[in-house]
Amino acid sequence: MTEILPSYVKGEWWTPDAAAGASAHEVRDASTGELVARVSTEGLDLPGALEYARTVGHASLGELTFHQRAVLLKQMAVALSERKPELYELSVRSGATQQDSWVDIDGGIGVLFTYSSKGRRELPNSRVYVDGAVESLSKDGSFLGRHIYTRLPGVAVQINAFNFPVWGSLEKFAPAFLAGMPTLVKPATPTGYVAEGYVRILVESGLLPEGSLQLVSGSVPDLFDHLRLGDLVAFTGSASTAERLRTHESVQTGGVRFTVETDSINASVLGTDAVAGTPEFDAYVKQLVVEMTSKAGQKCTAIRRAIVPDASVDDVIEAVRARIAERVVLGDPRAEGVTMGPLASKAQQEEVLRQVGKLTAAGGELVIGSTDAPTVTLAHGTASVASNGAFVAPMLLRFADATAPAVHEVEAFGPVASIIGYSSLDEASALVARGGGSLVTSVATHDPEVAMRLASGIAAYNGRVLFLDRDDARSSTGHGSPVPHLVHGGPGRAGGGEELGGIRAVLHHMQRTAVQGSPEMLTALTGVWHQGAAARSGGEHPFRKSLAELKIGDQVVSGSRTVTLEDIETFAAFTGDTFYAHMDEAAASANPFFPGRVAHGYLLVSWAAGLFVDAAPGPVLANSGLENLRFVTPVSPGDSIRVELTAKQITPRETDDYGEVRWDAVLRNQNDELVASYDVLTLVAKELEPAGA
Amino acid sequence: MTEILPSYVKGEWWTPDAAAGASAHEVRDASTGELVARVSTEGLDLPGALEYARTVGHASLGELTFHQRAVLLKQMAVALSERKPELYELSVRSGATQQDSWVDIDGGIGVLFTYSSKGRRELPNSRVYVDGAVESLSKDGSFLGRHIYTRLPGVAVQINAFNFPVWGSLEKFAPAFLAGMPTLVKPATPTGYVAEGYVRILVESGLLPEGSLQLVSGSVPDLFDHLRLGDLVAFTGSASTAERLRTHESVQTGGVRFTVETDSINASVLGTDAVAGTPEFDAYVKQLVVEMTSKAGQKCTAIRRAIVPDASVDDVIEAVRARIAERVVLGDPRAEGVTMGPLASKAQQEEVLRQVGKLTAAGGELVIGSTDAPTVTLAHGTASVASNGAFVAPMLLRFADATAPAVHEVEAFGPVASIIGYSSLDEASALVARGGGSLVTSVATHDPEVAMRLASGIAAYNGRVLFLDRDDARSSTGHGSPVPHLVHGGPGRAGGGEELGGIRAVLHHMQRTAVQGSPEMLTALTGVWHQGAAARSGGEHPFRKSLAELKIGDQVVSGSRTVTLEDIETFAAFTGDTFYAHMDEAAASANPFFPGRVAHGYLLVSWAAGLFVDAAPGPVLANSGLENLRFVTPVSPGDSIRVELTAKQITPRETDDYGEVRWDAVLRNQNDELVASYDVLTLVAKELEPAGA
Repeated sequence: MTEILPSYVKGEWWTPDAAAGASAHEVRDASTGELVARVSTEGLDLPGALEYARTVGHASLGELTFHQRAVLLKQMAVALSERKPELYELSVRSGATQQDSWVDIDGGIGVLFTYSSKGRRELPNSRVYVDGAVESLSKDGSFLGRHIYTRLPGVAVQINAFNFPVWGSLEKFAPAFLAGMPTLVKPATPTGYVAEGYVRILVESGLLPEGSLQLVSGSVPDLFDHLRLGDLVAFTGSASTAERLRTHESVQTGGVRFTVETDSINASVLGTDAVAGTPEFDAYVKQLVVEMTSKAGQKCTAIRRAIVPDASVDDVIEAVRARIAERVVLGDPRAEGVTMGPLASKAQQEEVLRQVGKLTAAGGELVIGSTDAPTVTLAHGTASVASNGAFVAPMLLRFADATAPAVHEVEAFGPVASIIGYSSLDEASALVARGGGSLVTSVATHDPEVAMRLASGIAAYNGRVLFLDRDDARSSTGHGSPVPHLVHGGPGRAGGGEELGGIRAVLHHMQRTAVQGSPEMLTALTGVWHQGAAARSGGEHPFRKSLAELKIGDQVVSGSRTVTLEDIETFAAFTGDTFYAHMDEAAASANPFFPGRVAHGYLLVSWAAGLFVDAAPGPVLANSGLENLRFVTPVSPGDSIRVELTAKQITPRETDDYGEVRWDAVLRNQNDELVASYDVLTLVAKELEPAGA
Repeated sequence: MTEILPSYVKGEWWTPDAAAGASAHEVRDASTGELVARVSTEGLDLPGALEYARTVGHASLGELTFHQRAVLLKQMAVALSERKPELYELSVRSGATQQDSWVDIDGGIGVLFTYSSKGRRELPNSRVYVDGAVESLSKDGSFLGRHIYTRLPGVAVQINAFNFPVWGSLEKFAPAFLAGMPTLVKPATPTGYVAEGYVRILVESGLLPEGSLQLVSGSVPDLFDHLRLGDLVAFTGSASTAERLRTHESVQTGGVRFTVETDSINASVLGTDAVAGTPEFDAYVKQLVVEMTSKAGQKCTAIRRAIVPDASVDDVIEAVRARIAERVVLGDPRAEGVTMGPLASKAQQEEVLRQVGKLTAAGGELVIGSTDAPTVTLAHGTASVASNGAFVAPMLLRFADATAPAVHEVEAFGPVASIIGYSSLDEASALVARGGGSLVTSVATHDPEVAMRLASGIAAYNGRVLFLDRDDARSSTGHGSPVPHLVHGGPGRAGGGEELGGIRAVLHHMQRTAVQGSPEMLTALTGVWHQGAAARSGGEHPFRKSLAELKIGDQVVSGSRTVTLEDIETFAAFTGDTFYAHMDEAAASANPFFPGRVAHGYLLVSWAAGLFVDAAPGPVLANSGLENLRFVTPVSPGDSIRVELTAKQITPRETDDYGEVRWDAVLRNQNDELVASYDVLTLVAKELEPAGA
């Protein structure tokens, strides 16, 4: 008898005892109907697992900085990459073609790589994320405000859909892990064995901090009873399940964050300019067929509504028909040449046919495909209409009435789309909006006016909008593919949640808190030096300190240097910058901002560097950049400037022997007026030995 | 008979007909019990008002840019300032002292000023807000991703609490207006006449775009039945009302955004270092008394739990007792010397005493104040225990058991706080967390270690944390005062919403959408030029163009200039920047980033200016700054550089005859390698006539 699929909880693998086996759920191969796994959680200590995450998981992740977690994500990605074939072998049982498996498995691993990279480039190497600029709340600068993000104090529960068991799980896990929240993942039962596969690889890699990832293989009906403030649930699945879960007391009044991503009635609009024969028309048709057939249309982002100019409806139908005939081979993904697999299960097959029935009953005319059992290519290469697999042919329905409610509300979660016509761009926008909120809409147009008109009408109804034209048709990542850099989720029917979007998703696992206090306190709380906080100058020059010695607040206070007219002329001659404000007294005086000829801003920052630099070889390796430079008070001949340079933020790199130091630079004139302020970015060695030695 | 309080809907004032008057709700003066107003919405066309906002209001606001809306907010603030006395006169009837009225009325006007200023400084002068950096999604740069915010397509319904009828309304209105969402405001009935006062002034000012603000004076029980995707409700009030509204179908599945801010059991922690005799102890006690008595404690942000070291409990009680005796005079705010007014209504008075009863029944010992009718100063100056007003004396309860559930759960929404002791900082954090999520916690400490320890334990349970010490005690804006710059709202019991926080609140009225497309399309959609999009060079130098003529994409492509060792030495001598990477061949070669001596980064950007500048007087007025400078490839003697400068974003100022132009600057070497990239900021005249002429 097939063993029950294990869960991984409280630091060990767990399976129900034999008695529980009798009631276990059976999972079958999508193409052949063979038994693949049995699933049961009978006897699982769910409250114990949640508490283990909140205590052990929280403690182990709390010891790591953002960058340390990011490095682990990369190592996990490598560990999974090395054992991909095992995952492909599991994936094919779910009906996935090799292409589908790449999207799921390689795509999921790619999310880990992206988060590892973004975590190190865009987060500080600490545990607190500072959001936005400092706000001065008192005239004397003694009371400041700032926003910080700190991780939620609970567990991130991730409830996934069946269609992408690896990607769907890792796209939630990566940001939670980076934020420092322990994960408890509950895969969908029909493909839970694929998720179990990747979790097993991660557990065996030894890379997971204790309690940072737990797996529950099977249903957890009383989950929400055990959640509380500080916990977060990220849910992907059907709108009806989301609706039921959302009404739970722990979400309604208990403060549990509930992020929802549900499949939606996504649209793809063909622009008025994109008539047959244009590259945009071809790209539109190609994309539509991809979205109907990849993963057999079982994608929450798939195109369900093709919205095209009335005059182009017939052209699109014929082009789609031709492309399907040419490209789509339905069958067992193990058979050579098959480009489209079955649905995940017989239950899904029945459900999709039921929804197609609703669409035809509501006026949809089946113009491509049929609900009859399709001829499919079986594993041994023979074609047959008889099979135990969950096969459904690609279908396109045409609705004469573009405003028929069913086309905007009924979803057949398979290789099924509907086509409707529009007569004006405003009507096209209104049709998109009838979907009640979508994950994604794509627009094929090469006319920026068409793009802008549609964007203003549809952006607020979508989490993502893709513009397809001749310039990006080949490089586009595709209508149906969320990318880790951009948010995935959408308003209304799409669930109202947001996932991915780079660091945005990390912050969804944290609480934003406004902190108010003195510069000294905000410096302590954020790890970033604030103007007004204590600074140490006069001792060893901070450029002589390695990262091991340097502290925020270490400061250089320079002597002053007087600017002469000759200096300005020398600089103008040397650089070629003879802008009138520096060279022409009359014209400069007529300018609303200058009293007469003034020094070049670049002269000032160049001199400032001369004033603050410590020239001898040492731990400072390079000036890597400069940010937020503002020129405030102009400097006239006879004025003098001086600079204060203070170590503001220190970011050691985990995998290099140096790191970044951000310095606060303030230039003042002889009257103490602010001349300019900016941040200087440098690379500094971790230890005093030169990195190159 | 007192007239029924009017509503302002569909562009005109509206009152129910006489027959409705019989069932109108009566509102009475908080101190004297005299009838102030009658309130009824019988016969009000609410669906019509909502649709008016979505059509007329949306259209009129959509004609304005962020900056134009921001200018109007300032003009509204001025209009309200000029007629403040009328509002003070209304406000005093609600029991507000002059100090309370300042917080409500001047505070509300201050929010408009702040949003006007922030809107013009932090938003573009257009209708789309670009969020975050561009994401390159293809190797060849032909497919990019970016996030934009566009306004929600519906109406912003604002449901306010009774305690701050002006501030509470304007803090919601300002960000909605700036975002471009029309507002329908529903004030709380007990103080709706004050809100009606400010709305009347705004209507009479003629500043409101048609349909941008409507007022419903009275209850709207079926409101949520008329809401739909694209609408937003911002609610301030009791947790129980919020809970009931949240379960409505339009929120649960209809996609209506529902932002909740409820009063919470806020805490104030006395640090272990802040013993009696320290400035922090004094600041703590002073703040506690202010929070108990200002607005008679009717603030959602008031301190309900004083959490102090066990050893300091008695000291705090005695110091609070002394300060109340010295400072607090309870009575009709119209009477001279009164520092604390009544509650807003007799109903509130009964409710507060009922909750105090719950607290005492659960173990709270009344150590200051009592539930007996207090002696109060009446309008004519006499002291009396008998009055028709809703007076309640300030009360402090002591709980011997710091973990008694009631102290963390029961709120008496009046001048009532409880004091509990703690034995360790971790225990103090755990006690704060027992509030189940708060709007604000304050901490009095001068020890950064204490602050950091408490912050890591409590930040995630609070929307705001204030650190009070000797450095900011005088300049602090106070535990109970949200400021427009910082978020107001908190997790869990506090409602889970966010308001204010500067531009963050504007974005809460908009939808974030990921857009994908070619550089050309993203340029069109965002109004910001993207690398890879078409650029126009070779014609008139863009520095010769005023804002009226300049277009994004206008470009200068410079000639190239070769850097010699002599140039580097000249620059080093002139600036004093003799850093070894420029001067010492051996040391520079040993550096991991440089092949040998290299040019100063500041030399490169200075030369770039010389290469791209058009020197003669013209519309370009000043170089105001520089952003995001990154040095990528070092430049050695013999290398040459050239620069491409492209107009990237144009931001005309509404109230000046110039605006800002952001230029994209890219430096490349003779091998086309990227040397540096940055944004140059300039001020440019709107018209060709020099601004100073």
